[in-house]
Amino acid sequence: MTNPTPPTVTTGPLPGASKLHIPGRLHPGIAVPMRQIALDPAAGEPPVRLYDTSGPYTDPAAAIDIARGLPRQREAWLAACADCEGYEGRAPRPEDNGHTESAQSAPPFGSRHRPLRARPGRSVTQLAYARAGIITPEMEFVAIRENLGRAQARDGAPVGATLPETITPEFVRDEIARGRAVIPANINHPELEPMIIGRNFLTKINANIGNSAVTSSMAEEVDKMVWAIRWGADTVMDLSTGRDIHTIRDWILRNAPVPIGTVPLYQALEKVGGVAEDLTWEVFRDTLIEQAEQGVDYFTIHAGLRLHHIPLTVGRVTGIVSRGGSIMAKWCLAHHTESFLYEHFAEICTICRAYDVTISLGDGLRPGSIADANDAAQFAELETLGELTRVAWAQDVQVIIEGPGHVPMHKIKENVDRQLALCGEAPFYTLGPIVTDIAPGYDHITSAIGAAMIGWFGTAMLCYVTPKEHLGLPDRTDVKTGVITYKIAAHAADLAKGHPAARLRDDALSRARFDFRWEDQFNLGLDPDTARALHDETLPKAAHKLAHFCSMCGPKFCSMKISHDIRAEAQKEGMAAMAERFRQQGALYLPVEG
Amino acid sequence: MTNPTPPTVTTGPLPGASKLHIPGRLHPGIAVPMRQIALDPAAGEPPVRLYDTSGPYTDPAAAIDIARGLPRQREAWLAACADCEGYEGRAPRPEDNGHTESAQSAPPFGSRHRPLRARPGRSVTQLAYARAGIITPEMEFVAIRENLGRAQARDGAPVGATLPETITPEFVRDEIARGRAVIPANINHPELEPMIIGRNFLTKINANIGNSAVTSSMAEEVDKMVWAIRWGADTVMDLSTGRDIHTIRDWILRNAPVPIGTVPLYQALEKVGGVAEDLTWEVFRDTLIEQAEQGVDYFTIHAGLRLHHIPLTVGRVTGIVSRGGSIMAKWCLAHHTESFLYEHFAEICTICRAYDVTISLGDGLRPGSIADANDAAQFAELETLGELTRVAWAQDVQVIIEGPGHVPMHKIKENVDRQLALCGEAPFYTLGPIVTDIAPGYDHITSAIGAAMIGWFGTAMLCYVTPKEHLGLPDRTDVKTGVITYKIAAHAADLAKGHPAARLRDDALSRARFDFRWEDQFNLGLDPDTARALHDETLPKAAHKLAHFCSMCGPKFCSMKISHDIRAEAQKEGMAAMAERFRQQGALYLPVEG
Repeated sequence: MTNPTPPTVTTGPLPGASKLHIPGRLHPGIAVPMRQIALDPAAGEPPVRLYDTSGPYTDPAAAIDIARGLPRQREAWLAACADCEGYEGRAPRPEDNGHTESAQSAPPFGSRHRPLRARPGRSVTQLAYARAGIITPEMEFVAIRENLGRAQARDGAPVGATLPETITPEFVRDEIARGRAVIPANINHPELEPMIIGRNFLTKINANIGNSAVTSSMAEEVDKMVWAIRWGADTVMDLSTGRDIHTIRDWILRNAPVPIGTVPLYQALEKVGGVAEDLTWEVFRDTLIEQAEQGVDYFTIHAGLRLHHIPLTVGRVTGIVSRGGSIMAKWCLAHHTESFLYEHFAEICTICRAYDVTISLGDGLRPGSIADANDAAQFAELETLGELTRVAWAQDVQVIIEGPGHVPMHKIKENVDRQLALCGEAPFYTLGPIVTDIAPGYDHITSAIGAAMIGWFGTAMLCYVTPKEHLGLPDRTDVKTGVITYKIAAHAADLAKGHPAARLRDDALSRARFDFRWEDQFNLGLDPDTARALHDETLPKAAHKLAHFCSMCGPKFCSMKISHDIRAEAQKEGMAAMAERFRQQGALYLPVEG
Repeated sequence: MTNPTPPTVTTGPLPGASKLHIPGRLHPGIAVPMRQIALDPAAGEPPVRLYDTSGPYTDPAAAIDIARGLPRQREAWLAACADCEGYEGRAPRPEDNGHTESAQSAPPFGSRHRPLRARPGRSVTQLAYARAGIITPEMEFVAIRENLGRAQARDGAPVGATLPETITPEFVRDEIARGRAVIPANINHPELEPMIIGRNFLTKINANIGNSAVTSSMAEEVDKMVWAIRWGADTVMDLSTGRDIHTIRDWILRNAPVPIGTVPLYQALEKVGGVAEDLTWEVFRDTLIEQAEQGVDYFTIHAGLRLHHIPLTVGRVTGIVSRGGSIMAKWCLAHHTESFLYEHFAEICTICRAYDVTISLGDGLRPGSIADANDAAQFAELETLGELTRVAWAQDVQVIIEGPGHVPMHKIKENVDRQLALCGEAPFYTLGPIVTDIAPGYDHITSAIGAAMIGWFGTAMLCYVTPKEHLGLPDRTDVKTGVITYKIAAHAADLAKGHPAARLRDDALSRARFDFRWEDQFNLGLDPDTARALHDETLPKAAHKLAHFCSMCGPKFCSMKISHDIRAEAQKEGMAAMAERFRQQGALYLPVEG
């Protein structure tokens, strides 16, 4: 155990990509990472800058050592923070890892750091600073990151969102102060590259990983985390429910440049041997502190499920499908008393406040089928989540609200409308929603449809669903498929919301497509490797990557090729002028045009 | 060549499925196929009836012989038709197959049948009969097929659609008479199992197949057709552009129980050696008759692209991306004259009328990128498509309208609104639309998002997009992925439209999921094989198919298992009454509830 072999992860830049870092102006110490795609000189276009979630792993200049963890860049920022203090912290206990010290258990992560917490009476949350009018390094970091220093004409139809042409640090501060956005950034997670979650920013996606009693290991989970952010996961939730929960989380956090979320109830349940009835506030409280000291950035807490909500689920087709929700429902019924999470919610906030752990209010009563969508149980809980949001805000604790689930298209918008109204515009964080139940094995797709729509309507973060949903635990391949699918949904939402920078990437790729710059088309895509591989299947030769056609039509039929001839002719004939005349006529042709 | 080995195709029922046939009442001679899924006896539920596009290939009782073709069931119906006459027909010519008689060329299909056409002055189209108040066998066939003899409470929000609780033959006739629906059914395609395309019916999907100058063969294309309908393709378009076009189409038609569509312009171009400028009305006309006699059910004809539209495309990011559109644009510019398809459209209708070939008015100017969506060129052509719809209807010719393409979410609905207004509610048939350009390799997903939404808004048929879109020609695997993805989009649209029967399948599958009837869950899904395979990856044992948990959570954590305990307890405690009380309270909790 003293000298374990660390897990191996995928490193190195994506095809055609390089990494650059932009310093802050208010906080010159920060370096905001971006990805840059160089284009074929023939394009005569500047490189395309992209939002980059992958951290140092895609930076050739970075020396990656999983056993030592990532550089602790935020330590320098926090050193300046007079509101924090270091302390001894809670010593790890056998039960933290499921009572196991056996040989199969994962090796402990090498170095343990003294945890930080707020000094007595102080608050260290981004919300507290925002309310005090302070722009933190985290705020400037995300402002630069969101913006990519670009602006372009707005073309979108925001539903509830109001995006400025450029994201300023002050706009970030204001959105956080209003509770409309959060920066999940535990002061004990200094490896973090801050990101923001709010409907007036880029739509974010979360990838769930984690082992279970049935399968997978520490090394696999660390690899999945790095793999998920390589393809664009903005946050990662560790939903481990098996053994070695504490140790696996250590390895993940020390190597994670993205916010890490957990459901502390899962570990608390392990500590009481998996018997829901045996859960206590004390065990749960101890688990919150354990995880807060490790640096978990956000906790999913199912405090909105109350005793009197449970009977509302009796008539459902799929009952309670949230793990946390069903555990708490069982506890409430067994004790015939109110949920201890609801009863102790103010104390939960006090703990989160000391470390700036963002609370993600879990939807324990989310529908698990089309039949149960938007029912009384779901909306009764949502009402309580609104009540709890105000409790958290009273303590300067950042809050996001979790949402469904399984919802047919015509019932999606009502979810956003109610959430915004009931929860004071706190960011909405939904799982899909899945828009039909009939495609097990393809629920990344059934849910991407709902996710894109709900993102357009104002949902701030989309929790991915993989092809394994309802069938098993996602492996590495499923994680990538889920992430890419959700990047599609999130970007489609950003286009529809009219994010000022979103369309630049579509346009650059479409120009590459029209110009037959195959390499540029691959590299500007979400998954260059797959795009290239599919092209290779029919036209494998390198020369084909320069060909002015593809196997769909072959040389004679290529419509884009013909379009080029037409354009050439058009120029010859000076049709640009004609075009204008016809465009005007075109308008006349269209009486219904609004 | 006299004794060719016929292509091999996939046959046999899907897991858990059996085939049944329902006779007509007006027309006792018809037998409408349906798929039935038997459930675990523990369910205590009747078998679930599903719409079945797969034809005799999934019927164990059917003897499949590709070399002889499918039974010609409609011959008996047409024999009664005094409006038809048989005649010698056009003899195949070398140029029909691209001037090739070489060894590589595909073997001719065995038996050649005398073609039928309308007697002089008679009309044999479904539209003509519908207008005359006649309910044809085809109309009763689709009424029974759409209905599945089921009805349930409406729960949906139709956008423009108005679906009755049960589909009657008279409703079918009325929708066809109004031009709001079509039954593509060439009188020379007697192997057809009729289906209907209209926004007040189940949303349909089309799968494109076809070889190209670069790849694939006759055997592959026949196999792809059978494979596509096995997974749910309602129609198949043969977009072949290479050699042996005539022969490949013969093999496909004689073995196709679904409507077959083509783009006759592709073959016409082959006949003139691929030189667009050399196309003539005579060559095109000859091709229409050749294909109509073979039994092609619908023709895509790009007659809406006019000379004066072309300059409107000069400023586009991706110019003209429709193959047919770019070919016609090149022809118009080369000759500086109006499109011969537009000029001769009335004659085209006269030919289609004689065989009841449905016209699919092609959108030659559809946008090929997010940047070009909903532009002047696209909508100017749509205006012309409306004009041509009226010309076709004047001759009793059935019409559908093709639509985009690449459209961001916030611009999708305008496409449907304009199409319905400009084209007299003729059925809309869209390709996706793709909602972002940045995911080459995943365009089945980028387009499924747009397809589901536009289907909800009233689009009658969705043309699939495969993962190979923009990269290559789809193979067998891509065809299945594209079809399953589009079944998801179409079914999601039917749920949102509130189709009376749509939700029954979701509910049956969700009950199976909640009851841990794994086999039923797999078999009720769109792709039982894949669902089972993914479940096997983590829990391969047969016993696991009975397990009351899966590898996602393991036994201790399964929320559904806990829900069952809760339900049991709830019954004990007589919580049903409490539920009612709380449901009422629940309502009070929700002031915003509409």
